[in-house]
Amino acid sequence: MTVSHGGQTGRCASTALSADVVRRLDVLKVQSSPVSAMANITKKVSWSGRGEEGTPLLNGSEEVKYTRQLSGGGMFHIGRLSTVDLDEDITPEEDAVRSKPKEIPHNEKLLSLKYESLDYDNIENHLFLEEERRMGHMSFRCLEISRWVICGLIGVLTGLIACFIDIVVEKLAGVKYVVVKKSIDKNTEIGGMCISLILWAALNSAFVMVGAIIVAFFEPIAAGSGIPQIKCYLNGVKVPRVVRLKTLMVKVCGVICSVAGGLAVGKEGPMIHSGAVVAAGVSQGRSTSLKKDFKIFEYFRRDTEKRDFVSAGAAAGVSAAFGAPVGGVLFSLEEGASFWNQLLTWRIFFASMISTFTLNFVLSIYHKKTGELSSPGLINFGSFDLKSVKYNIYEIPLFIVMGAIGGLLGALFNVLNYWLTIFRIRYVHRPCLQVMEAMLVAAVTATVSFAMIYFSNDCQPLETQKSSEDYSLQGFCADGEYSAMATAFFNTPERSVRSLFHSPAGTYKLETLGCFTLVYFFLACWTYGLTVSAGVFIPSLLIGAAWGRLFGIMLPYIALNPSVFTDPGKYALMGAAAQLGGIVRMTLSLTVILVEATGNVTYGLPIMLVLMTAKIVGDYFIEGLYDVHIKLQSVPFLHWDAPATSHSLTAREVMSSPVTCFNRVEKVGTIVDVLSNTSTNHNGFPVIIQTAASEEPGKLCGLILRSQLIVLLKHKVFVERARSRLRQRKLQLKDFRDAYPRFPPIQSIHVSQDERECMMDLTEFMNPTPYTVPQDTSLPRVFKLFRALGLRHLVVVDDDNRVIGLVTRKDLARYHLGKHGLEELHLAHT
Amino acid sequence: MTVSHGGQTGRCASTALSADVVRRLDVLKVQSSPVSAMANITKKVSWSGRGEEGTPLLNGSEEVKYTRQLSGGGMFHIGRLSTVDLDEDITPEEDAVRSKPKEIPHNEKLLSLKYESLDYDNIENHLFLEEERRMGHMSFRCLEISRWVICGLIGVLTGLIACFIDIVVEKLAGVKYVVVKKSIDKNTEIGGMCISLILWAALNSAFVMVGAIIVAFFEPIAAGSGIPQIKCYLNGVKVPRVVRLKTLMVKVCGVICSVAGGLAVGKEGPMIHSGAVVAAGVSQGRSTSLKKDFKIFEYFRRDTEKRDFVSAGAAAGVSAAFGAPVGGVLFSLEEGASFWNQLLTWRIFFASMISTFTLNFVLSIYHKKTGELSSPGLINFGSFDLKSVKYNIYEIPLFIVMGAIGGLLGALFNVLNYWLTIFRIRYVHRPCLQVMEAMLVAAVTATVSFAMIYFSNDCQPLETQKSSEDYSLQGFCADGEYSAMATAFFNTPERSVRSLFHSPAGTYKLETLGCFTLVYFFLACWTYGLTVSAGVFIPSLLIGAAWGRLFGIMLPYIALNPSVFTDPGKYALMGAAAQLGGIVRMTLSLTVILVEATGNVTYGLPIMLVLMTAKIVGDYFIEGLYDVHIKLQSVPFLHWDAPATSHSLTAREVMSSPVTCFNRVEKVGTIVDVLSNTSTNHNGFPVIIQTAASEEPGKLCGLILRSQLIVLLKHKVFVERARSRLRQRKLQLKDFRDAYPRFPPIQSIHVSQDERECMMDLTEFMNPTPYTVPQDTSLPRVFKLFRALGLRHLVVVDDDNRVIGLVTRKDLARYHLGKHGLEELHLAHT
Repeated sequence: MTVSHGGQTGRCASTALSADVVRRLDVLKVQSSPVSAMANITKKVSWSGRGEEGTPLLNGSEEVKYTRQLSGGGMFHIGRLSTVDLDEDITPEEDAVRSKPKEIPHNEKLLSLKYESLDYDNIENHLFLEEERRMGHMSFRCLEISRWVICGLIGVLTGLIACFIDIVVEKLAGVKYVVVKKSIDKNTEIGGMCISLILWAALNSAFVMVGAIIVAFFEPIAAGSGIPQIKCYLNGVKVPRVVRLKTLMVKVCGVICSVAGGLAVGKEGPMIHSGAVVAAGVSQGRSTSLKKDFKIFEYFRRDTEKRDFVSAGAAAGVSAAFGAPVGGVLFSLEEGASFWNQLLTWRIFFASMISTFTLNFVLSIYHKKTGELSSPGLINFGSFDLKSVKYNIYEIPLFIVMGAIGGLLGALFNVLNYWLTIFRIRYVHRPCLQVMEAMLVAAVTATVSFAMIYFSNDCQPLETQKSSEDYSLQGFCADGEYSAMATAFFNTPERSVRSLFHSPAGTYKLETLGCFTLVYFFLACWTYGLTVSAGVFIPSLLIGAAWGRLFGIMLPYIALNPSVFTDPGKYALMGAAAQLGGIVRMTLSLTVILVEATGNVTYGLPIMLVLMTAKIVGDYFIEGLYDVHIKLQSVPFLHWDAPATSHSLTAREVMSSPVTCFNRVEKVGTIVDVLSNTSTNHNGFPVIIQTAASEEPGKLCGLILRSQLIVLLKHKVFVERARSRLRQRKLQLKDFRDAYPRFPPIQSIHVSQDERECMMDLTEFMNPTPYTVPQDTSLPRVFKLFRALGLRHLVVVDDDNRVIGLVTRKDLARYHLGKHGLEELHLAHT
Repeated sequence: MTVSHGGQTGRCASTALSADVVRRLDVLKVQSSPVSAMANITKKVSWSGRGEEGTPLLNGSEEVKYTRQLSGGGMFHIGRLSTVDLDEDITPEEDAVRSKPKEIPHNEKLLSLKYESLDYDNIENHLFLEEERRMGHMSFRCLEISRWVICGLIGVLTGLIACFIDIVVEKLAGVKYVVVKKSIDKNTEIGGMCISLILWAALNSAFVMVGAIIVAFFEPIAAGSGIPQIKCYLNGVKVPRVVRLKTLMVKVCGVICSVAGGLAVGKEGPMIHSGAVVAAGVSQGRSTSLKKDFKIFEYFRRDTEKRDFVSAGAAAGVSAAFGAPVGGVLFSLEEGASFWNQLLTWRIFFASMISTFTLNFVLSIYHKKTGELSSPGLINFGSFDLKSVKYNIYEIPLFIVMGAIGGLLGALFNVLNYWLTIFRIRYVHRPCLQVMEAMLVAAVTATVSFAMIYFSNDCQPLETQKSSEDYSLQGFCADGEYSAMATAFFNTPERSVRSLFHSPAGTYKLETLGCFTLVYFFLACWTYGLTVSAGVFIPSLLIGAAWGRLFGIMLPYIALNPSVFTDPGKYALMGAAAQLGGIVRMTLSLTVILVEATGNVTYGLPIMLVLMTAKIVGDYFIEGLYDVHIKLQSVPFLHWDAPATSHSLTAREVMSSPVTCFNRVEKVGTIVDVLSNTSTNHNGFPVIIQTAASEEPGKLCGLILRSQLIVLLKHKVFVERARSRLRQRKLQLKDFRDAYPRFPPIQSIHVSQDERECMMDLTEFMNPTPYTVPQDTSLPRVFKLFRALGLRHLVVVDDDNRVIGLVTRKDLARYHLGKHGLEELHLAHT
């Protein structure tokens, strides 16, 4: 196992850079610890190809294996180094650096090399153009109809999954609460509350254990809400294993267990991930995991189409989770879109619509109100009474204050969670440890809840018309009363949120809400990042609703005219928005999601104001929670624009060079050697025509991908063979599509010594018109081109059209605006 | 005045092409008629430079003058030819063609050369990069804050304009209806209804006359809703005079007159145009018309920034019109976005938000309910009762049927309006004729309304709690009753819509609604395209609401279980959505706009379904109304994707060539000559380095625009001068910004004979890194690059980086998918 750093030519001095890397790796060594016995790969850190070889990568298959064995680190598998043996390959210069004082590790200052980009750009080679030219008007129409059909299927399946999760969770949680309630009711009389507590904690831990085990041992990528991963995928990063069937299975089971296990989590975030997996599966017309090929939708077997469908799937997920089809579309666009395409947007919208519809329809049957479609998604904020849905202009400043509070609390949440994640990376990375932590959190959650209910004295008269959906708990109240604290704690979070929004004024005491906010805040913060499938939306809403309601209750005490603040529910809603906005920092899509979940547009304006304030205040301190985790994961995430002050950089300075190029007709041996070189795992190779003077680099005439070369090698498409066997089957696009997306590693392809001497003609397969930029192009210009077209490789050429460098995602994602101006992240094999 | 056709090299045979053009021009001659005396320019049609000179253009300033004098043709100034004298310059081949039978003119098969593109791509020349590099982190932050401030201002001003229009219209219409009502009430008794009718018709005509005169004589571009123009602008087409202060003034006054004049129009569409003008004005920190420069926001004086602000303005307009901030954002994105930028989207959102807020706040003061912000925009659908806001699954097919009906009726509307527009282009183009037509329509509208009320026998009992906002008209009903027909006709359209949505079942009789739909449909169709400022949203909603309610009323008669169809208001809403969707064919943004205007998300799903069905059905017959008018205007509008079957075309075939290039250091005389050549009004010139062998074309090293050259010439930035006067002021970006956007024509710049011999060094001013494509790039690939980056010029180079062609908007917009596969539009000076 070789960890290497591909240095960059350019203005950053190579020496300074590598010294820096050494220091960081040194620091990383400290935090790393012995890895499980499964990771039986030789571990060695070496520095190779500094400033010489572009961006070397590890060999793909090995890397994947390694990743899997190490992973399971919380909601997002945090890249880390195994125990490194630094005694070998250390230069004196590097040794000198090691004596520097230890510093806190900043994984977010590194950029992982393990992530590849998606090819959003079509490879318009001869085969592709031939196919497109053969296709008539009708074929394109059929394709368009297939796209709509697929989007419909995505919607239906996503809706069904949401139904399944909802119903199973309701059933399991119902059984659990009934059992515990009975025990408490019984034990309150005979005085053995410990038994109830233990019963509750044990039940919770059991559920969570199951959820944590499947995640930690079977599919660590299924941990967490999945939103950061989907954000990365839509951004164009190929996150390994994120859209596989197994991930979906683990995700669905995991989220059921963690919600039923009473953790401070929601089931909404995972729906987005589930929708994305469904989309990736359905659109390909086959399952690679199940080895089942339906021979349909073969045209869509490429990254461009798949990514479009995944965005529809994510939207369908949001739509099912919140009953917010428009919000879903906006979520997909806000997170994923680079180039807004109207037809695509409509398809996304269609998928979202169908998803909400399916969910509503199935749930209406389940709830024995067949055909009544007016209920929204998984989380239902309940309908706000039209008469109370009013606000006045003097409330706007109050809402803005709430937004600011939300921003502050959100930033606090993110900072705490950041440190917790760092801690987890260092100390809690073995799957068994992770399962134990999850169980501990479940037990603590139950205990704390129990204690809060036990010590609370907020007893409210039991209303007879109380809706059947609350598990009213008498607790330690007098007969005919119920414990308000229990309504908040002894309930699924969704119901608690609804109760906080809609309960009439006076339902909750000040102290109850204060304690609840405090306790739940820390519980939720601790919970996010556990190795369980779970989302952060609902806990955030719940925390916010609690302090929002508190805010609303306190207002009459400090207002000049207390009579105008009679409805704390309104403030609960604003608090929920503020808290959620402060944590995740979405604005447009979140506004629409919340408005759609509320079912009423009147609160649109205040919700926007609250979310914007929360974002502005929160951004002052720390990024949004998802971005924090993406950064900790060292994903080469491309933001919307290049850093503002990056005009001083040009393509020449950011590109990787020299570039490994191939000739139009290249020797097979050369190709195999280049592909097999584990220290330079390049994925795209410019194809050049060698000019007469062979000293000079050749002129660019195309670009070919590793995956294409592998398919060519596998089918032995050599010039000599074509000559000898005249009737040999010509390689078709279908062969490439069949191999997509899991192209075999080069090691699995046997090339004999004779074959090595053959020649391969790349003309027909390479992309003959790759996008290029001159070397003096400024970074923002390169960035814009790259981002707008979703490129993977951008060739830098000189005035004579000779290849002088290659810009990839990592070269652009490296630059970011820090506190002291433009900063550069360093590439590393984390 | 030379009308010429720039033929294309490539696969389309040059001869066939020009023959076709001749036939078309021939036909155009027939439809054209003597132009007003103002157009005193020599008129002559000639064909020049066929296949030789790229896309020659007329001289800019002359063209603008000419356009102005001829324009005023309905809602969109339809390009047309003046009386052409074909006796000169006619080849025998062309003469032969003339004898062919006459055919109906197809203006939409031509592409006008008079439209230029906006430069959405930043010109990253030395000056620009220097400025950017000098700017620190803080400067960029200040810029960002200015952007937010500007968006806030846009919102406030747009909101205020909306208030102004709303209040004035209400006042004027109120006065008018009270006067007429009194007259009718009086005359019903004494029996002189003619007097009332004449009074009504005269009042209407008077209002409309004022509105039509200011539009027809002062600013013809202010005619219609302005949405097609804004669509074009956001698409990247520079529509002349569309975002000027004068246009805004005329628009606002015009819309007040036409709504108060009782035409079948709405005031919502023009708000979008108004918002856009406000944005273009505010963001530049000066008014060129008023010659007032506030010396602020100078950084934003370029097309890139201006277009972004205009999209915010359009969104603010939608937001104010419908109380739909999210809908506004989506409208801007759906119509304008090419590259989705998150920060920009938030700013657009902010502007929309502020706009709705301002409108609400000012109107709440006006309505004496200060501070109650819960009322939405200009059109208010009223609040749907929560209990009635329910639908059942068996209603979904009904909604889809309604969508289909809406699609059919919408297509009919568009076809009729298309023929009417063709008629207007031929026969109604003089301003005075246009004013007279508008007055005629106003009188007819009043007469028809009067007749309908007169002959209607739909009398309803007058309820005492009837809201004061309706002008209940007793008409010819008994005492204690009022005429239902009058409620629909004798009212502003907004109120009629609300009445149709919310009146209890039984308010309207079947026949009343049927007659109303029929009459209003044709009135609205006739009205759209008149030379008045007016929108089509509200009339569409009204027609739809009427037949939708009719549909709802008829349902119980045909249903098995009539008791379930008790609420015709719901069907009125769906009908309104279907009709509007069938006419304008927006889906996502329109769904959100309607949902926001309804104030309730429950109907989201049905509205989506209805709009989608309407679009699918309508698209089968004809495009949306706005697209029809854009096509008739021959605007080079770029759609989202290249035509599906266009992979067979390459850049070589679509590009214009040969290209006029300049050397890096070019003789002033050459530059002046090229710029002064009216037959080749090129706007972008590749800059080349001449290689040793001067026979070959030079290598590309930059791109310079006509506007830049003009500024350089104006400031006499010649190499010799720099040498002689060493301390001469260096040209700065500010000089270019000051000249933006109305660069002087080349004729106004005096260059002496001595100066013609000087040299100009373009190095510092040209864009050194223009985007290029190889000549084999497929059309879809070129299209994608062009569209995603909002380019104006795309240079086509060969393998040696030599310029061989230039692709502009017109080269791409030419290709479209017709009924028989790929079709090519022809370029013409219309």
